Amino acid sequence: MFQACKDSTSRPTLQAMSRRRLLLLSNSTNYGEEYLRFPLSYIRNFLGESVKRVLFIPFAGVRMTYDDYAARVRERFDEIGYALDSIHEASDPLRALEEAEALAVGGGNTFHLLRGLYEANLLEAIRARVLKGMPYIGWSAGSNVACPTIKTTNDMPVVEPPSFNALALVPFQINPHYTDATVPNHNGETRAERLLEFIEANAEMTVVGLKEGSALRIEGSEIKLLGDKSLLVFRKGQEIAEYNPQDSLQFLL
Amino acid sequence: MFQACKDSTSRPTLQAMSRRRLLLLSNSTNYGEEYLRFPLSYIRNFLGESVKRVLFIPFAGVRMTYDDYAARVRERFDEIGYALDSIHEASDPLRALEEAEALAVGGGNTFHLLRGLYEANLLEAIRARVLKGMPYIGWSAGSNVACPTIKTTNDMPVVEPPSFNALALVPFQINPHYTDATVPNHNGETRAERLLEFIEANAEMTVVGLKEGSALRIEGSEIKLLGDKSLLVFRKGQEIAEYNPQDSLQFLL
Repeated sequence: MFQACKDSTSRPTLQAMSRRRLLLLSNSTNYGEEYLRFPLSYIRNFLGESVKRVLFIPFAGVRMTYDDYAARVRERFDEIGYALDSIHEASDPLRALEEAEALAVGGGNTFHLLRGLYEANLLEAIRARVLKGMPYIGWSAGSNVACPTIKTTNDMPVVEPPSFNALALVPFQINPHYTDATVPNHNGETRAERLLEFIEANAEMTVVGLKEGSALRIEGSEIKLLGDKSLLVFRKGQEIAEYNPQDSLQFLL
Repeated sequence: MFQACKDSTSRPTLQAMSRRRLLLLSNSTNYGEEYLRFPLSYIRNFLGESVKRVLFIPFAGVRMTYDDYAARVRERFDEIGYALDSIHEASDPLRALEEAEALAVGGGNTFHLLRGLYEANLLEAIRARVLKGMPYIGWSAGSNVACPTIKTTNDMPVVEPPSFNALALVPFQINPHYTDATVPNHNGETRAERLLEFIEANAEMTVVGLKEGSALRIEGSEIKLLGDKSLLVFRKGQEIAEYNPQDSLQFLL
């Protein structure tokens, strides 16, 4: 029933990745703003004028129907001139993917999203198309699954995917919605503590804490932080490092 | 290498469970208090005078050594008159479990804990001993693994256990550290939203949101909420329900 995503934790070579184009957003919606509002200029700039239609993957949605989710996203993509097809409407999802001009993978629950990708047998196909240059846009869970695994998600494991291995379109882990803030008078771990646990258990990995309102834009071997916030980099045996949008992030690739 | 925990998601019969004794704490430490301070009176009352030694499972610890973790817990158990052995010190963990008078499963990372239980082949053995009356104390992750699955943990999935199925010593799910509070000016899901996602994806399950400072004490078919806070019950198609320590919770079993 499930397809295993082979080698997804192995570090892809830069040469194999020379055609990848990724826009990985921390979140869909900034606090107090309209749904999927701030990413629109990034998306427009990333997709440009040659793309006309975008294929959407709604599998991270749990408490809304895929129809409702796709409608919500379609409204926004319409505003910036892109038609949107949702893969759940396709009679042949793999063929829809083969023919897609660009892919958008929405947020929600990362475990639900990854299980959906395995059930629909889409992981290898997405990876193959991205390696050949199909633009990939993800936000929140959609950015998490672009990483080698989903082990740095903030989501509750409400369903069990056959594996935590994901698309491995980048060699590092993203923690979306990164924040230093904590719930007042409460004793749960901070986000940094959780990521240091990850680093402890996965010593070879690098984690990027990506704050809300931020995105990473990756073109082949180039990478740039979008937005006006810093990002944090967690590596075993090193201090947590902070980088600003003008800093070079090439070391991540 | 791994042992599967068979039938762990099936609802145990009350008859098979008539000898179980469980103390399931939301957390080890209340905000601003000393480590493992508030649970001590509950633990003392639960274990009573016949128990002399407690076996500790430190597998939820990630960023401290098991030695350090056991030493920290041992200090507290000493205060209330119980010697503590840690299973990681045992030359034969299964035999240590067979001979244990009582078990304490500490908090930390739930995924790390469950993976450790699978790797040490302990799930069926713990379950068998609890069904025969060995007292089980858990806090945070240690309460999560007493449930049918770990799908209601708050922890980051920093390592991948072979399954989300856990001990199923109770037929419902606990969400430890339950809180209605959120991080200010931040757009992550609330705890209630996360649990409603779980209910949406697991319609047959009941979830108990257990606030910090609270515990559930279960003796056979009796269950009682300890502490001075309410708990919340999440069930598909029903309003979130609130119960106080004097209320009957028998419906949970």
